[in-house]
Amino acid sequence: MSKGNQKLQIIPLGGLGEIGKNMTVIRYEDEILLIDSGLMFPEEDMLGIDLVIPDITYLLENRDKIKAIVLTHGHEDHIGALPYVLKQISVPVYGTRLTLGILEGRLKENGVDSSMLHPVMQGDIINVGCFSVGFIRVNHSIPDAVGLSIKTPLGMIVHTGDFKLDYTPIDGKMTDFRRFSELGNKGVLVMMADSTNSEREGHTPSERTVGAAFDKAFHNCRSRIIVATFSSNVHRIQQVIDTAVRYKRKVAVLGRSMVNVVNISLELGYINAPEGTIVDIDEIGNYPMSRIVIITTGSQGEPMSALTRMSMSDHRKVGIVPGDTVIISATPIPGNEKLVAKTIDNLLKLGANVIYGRNKGIHVSGHASQEELKLMHNLVRPKFFIPVHGEYHHLVQHAKLARELGMPKDHIFIAENGSVLEFTKDKGAIVGKVQAGMVMVDGLGVGDVGNIVLRDRRQLSQDGILIVVVTMDRATSRVVAGPDIVSRGFVYVRESEALMDEAKARVEQALEKCEEEKITEWSTIKSNVRDALGRYLFDKTRRRPMILPIIMEM
Amino acid sequence: MSKGNQKLQIIPLGGLGEIGKNMTVIRYEDEILLIDSGLMFPEEDMLGIDLVIPDITYLLENRDKIKAIVLTHGHEDHIGALPYVLKQISVPVYGTRLTLGILEGRLKENGVDSSMLHPVMQGDIINVGCFSVGFIRVNHSIPDAVGLSIKTPLGMIVHTGDFKLDYTPIDGKMTDFRRFSELGNKGVLVMMADSTNSEREGHTPSERTVGAAFDKAFHNCRSRIIVATFSSNVHRIQQVIDTAVRYKRKVAVLGRSMVNVVNISLELGYINAPEGTIVDIDEIGNYPMSRIVIITTGSQGEPMSALTRMSMSDHRKVGIVPGDTVIISATPIPGNEKLVAKTIDNLLKLGANVIYGRNKGIHVSGHASQEELKLMHNLVRPKFFIPVHGEYHHLVQHAKLARELGMPKDHIFIAENGSVLEFTKDKGAIVGKVQAGMVMVDGLGVGDVGNIVLRDRRQLSQDGILIVVVTMDRATSRVVAGPDIVSRGFVYVRESEALMDEAKARVEQALEKCEEEKITEWSTIKSNVRDALGRYLFDKTRRRPMILPIIMEM
Repeated sequence: MSKGNQKLQIIPLGGLGEIGKNMTVIRYEDEILLIDSGLMFPEEDMLGIDLVIPDITYLLENRDKIKAIVLTHGHEDHIGALPYVLKQISVPVYGTRLTLGILEGRLKENGVDSSMLHPVMQGDIINVGCFSVGFIRVNHSIPDAVGLSIKTPLGMIVHTGDFKLDYTPIDGKMTDFRRFSELGNKGVLVMMADSTNSEREGHTPSERTVGAAFDKAFHNCRSRIIVATFSSNVHRIQQVIDTAVRYKRKVAVLGRSMVNVVNISLELGYINAPEGTIVDIDEIGNYPMSRIVIITTGSQGEPMSALTRMSMSDHRKVGIVPGDTVIISATPIPGNEKLVAKTIDNLLKLGANVIYGRNKGIHVSGHASQEELKLMHNLVRPKFFIPVHGEYHHLVQHAKLARELGMPKDHIFIAENGSVLEFTKDKGAIVGKVQAGMVMVDGLGVGDVGNIVLRDRRQLSQDGILIVVVTMDRATSRVVAGPDIVSRGFVYVRESEALMDEAKARVEQALEKCEEEKITEWSTIKSNVRDALGRYLFDKTRRRPMILPIIMEM
Repeated sequence: MSKGNQKLQIIPLGGLGEIGKNMTVIRYEDEILLIDSGLMFPEEDMLGIDLVIPDITYLLENRDKIKAIVLTHGHEDHIGALPYVLKQISVPVYGTRLTLGILEGRLKENGVDSSMLHPVMQGDIINVGCFSVGFIRVNHSIPDAVGLSIKTPLGMIVHTGDFKLDYTPIDGKMTDFRRFSELGNKGVLVMMADSTNSEREGHTPSERTVGAAFDKAFHNCRSRIIVATFSSNVHRIQQVIDTAVRYKRKVAVLGRSMVNVVNISLELGYINAPEGTIVDIDEIGNYPMSRIVIITTGSQGEPMSALTRMSMSDHRKVGIVPGDTVIISATPIPGNEKLVAKTIDNLLKLGANVIYGRNKGIHVSGHASQEELKLMHNLVRPKFFIPVHGEYHHLVQHAKLARELGMPKDHIFIAENGSVLEFTKDKGAIVGKVQAGMVMVDGLGVGDVGNIVLRDRRQLSQDGILIVVVTMDRATSRVVAGPDIVSRGFVYVRESEALMDEAKARVEQALEKCEEEKITEWSTIKSNVRDALGRYLFDKTRRRPMILPIIMEM
């Protein structure tokens, strides 16, 4: 292949058309750079599934070409699949210190070696095969987040990562505008940018505004304060600590993931607390309630979290007492609204004063709104644009925004997971598709639950199951014992004896009919039983439980 | 009992601490008036349940005392339980014409006679036993809604119903401020008021503002327009028709409940359309697409609805074509966000232009925000106040608002379903509790699915079921045939043969051990099998499927 024909490919393997499991392949000839390896939480209809990771068939098929994995930040939707990926692919992983600190914990839990992790600093540039990768500081709802500049033989790629533009960040470290602007001046071939908030008008407020709301809440409070937020929101936690110090309160940390992140962050210097500010949760009894702040998980109403347990008077260490002030410093993620409302109701019933809701200033997003996206586009001025990180409507809205900024329509690519985007110095196109999709993780099983199993779980969940067991003579196909019917999840049998008796009679009739008609094929007998019983039950109850005939042969 | 001891009771049987199944008892001595009989849609963890109605044990126990049921409006959460209630209790039902029109359809579907329905007009006052009930016009997201004035021997009760204050309503008929004010002037003992939007600051916009947004959308559109909204939002439908007429488009109606409500409304005069404006859905092919508007259901992404089917290219009559404009004229009800987002994504992928979201002006709420609630409190100036219609946090917020308006704390009652509130002319208190709660409806079964069945459905939905069948000799307790293991919803068996083989071996070992130890008690044998298999499977998969051992005896 002559030099002029060489092509640069971008292949998103996750994160397009969905919120979660972000993963992108950058490929030039036989060299691959992988950006992020995130997980996604299961959709409602994925019954019993714990989490979802990207299908990495493409990576496994091109295993020897992968030079490195680079990480943008330490959120689950960007690093959560690594324990699974790194079990199958052994390559160096580059990320900032906090990102790797959090990742290390995850790898340890999964028994995966972490010797391939290599820390970088915001601002670093590393060489990986033919690529030169720069880590550009961005503001997000977790510290140490980066966007990426990826210099390739055909031109510069910029990936914003998850970002916002915070002019007054807690740690004083702003999104590195200058670097993005510099890259824009030199010429950027392709930009991929965060689309999560592309439907939101205006500008996402600074994280610092939350501190002001905390101050107001603390100022008015003479009782204990409990703040629930995302464990990864280290700047939020810092603001709770800062406010606590100002109001002379001790801070206790509660909830497994919160304790983990606070410990890592203290160790790495991402959280600063004056000596003696943070006390063990077991020691809070040594202080008056009015001198205590508890930082905890459970802002999403997660059933097993500390706040949810407290709200149900079911926590081993902390019980809500009337007068407690609880601040829910988070917005419900779509799908969690009802769980959060239930938690709030339970806290209110226990006599707590609960501060929650969008208009209280106690939470801000970590993603750029429309005006910030416009600024990023204007700084980077890429030739081609791929909106990433978002459901399809977010991507469409982000593409629309780019068009409004003057970008030609055919320079914008709304791609999907598996799309192969190919670029030369002046052309770009979607040229094909590789295998991509999701792999469901259920317990220790990775990918062993598929559509058939899920379909069965769905039917079982709706109307339960009836098992019909009958013992038959192998030679004569005559009933030797049974039929017995056992049901689960269908009706409360003690209250529906007549129904079950009649059900059994219908099965007996069906079996007799089979005998009369000399049907000896067991699959036919089973299907006749299933039909007769199903019809009867639907007629009587308008339900369609799973019916499972089992023939024991003698 | 002397006259001075007689007491007035208010007993909410539904709608407190929840959105839905509104039902309130007003009792004076031996006379009961019932307000509304609503249903609720099931919570996420009520697997397979179709709908939830109030527990009416109290009503059945006091059946002979009930003089009438009065209805505030025709939404499901106010009339949806009537098919079930009226099967058990035969009393006159009073409501406005549209309310009864919609109710009649529901009763017919359920085979319930509707001869006890008595229409009233907004403004009417009727006598029911010792009560005199006035129907006061209010604005809501359905026409013909009313609040109630209930004159009792001990004083006046005012129930706002679901309401908002719309100064520019579509039909020109405003909430009857004067009547509420008049009642306030004469003195109101107790007010119950809608709390749904008690957390929302300011004033809910007028329904008419949606018309302006429609006009803008229609003005810019050269293609077909599809508008999805709630079928009961008759004024919204009227505005679609009005806008269509202005832009010389024909209107077709799609979706069973939409067709029903439009027909009833046309018949009763709640919708007005110039001759020839509304065309049959089968006739839309006779017009250019740019001359067509389709009004349809599916604004909540409901799986079986017309819009959802269209979005999945699965509708018998209408397929989305690129360029179609789809207006989602509704906000997702909490819990439906993901379904709605998926529908939008599917429509966008088919090339539709989709107008959706909070900031587009294409939807307004039907419930009063804080400023409207304040006005209502100031008009009615009740001695006692019970916030109703809302989750606990809504009630708490409404109570707080009342306190801020100067009402003494001990004159405000945050009650729950079943609370017995007792009032004299100058005192009020929660004095007790009657049976109240929910009854789950699944298919034809009313109340036959309880916690045990739901718990089983939950376990089945998470990890499926394994059925172990073994035939044993009655006399010797020896295995005659089996064990056979059948699984559903656990793993895809073809890919997990080794696991299932080993599982079978574990069961065989357990059975052998029982034989060796001469265990003949079948319940012990079953539990040993269940334990051995459960331990093995959890160890290998970290899943806990239901394990159901069945012994067939010979």
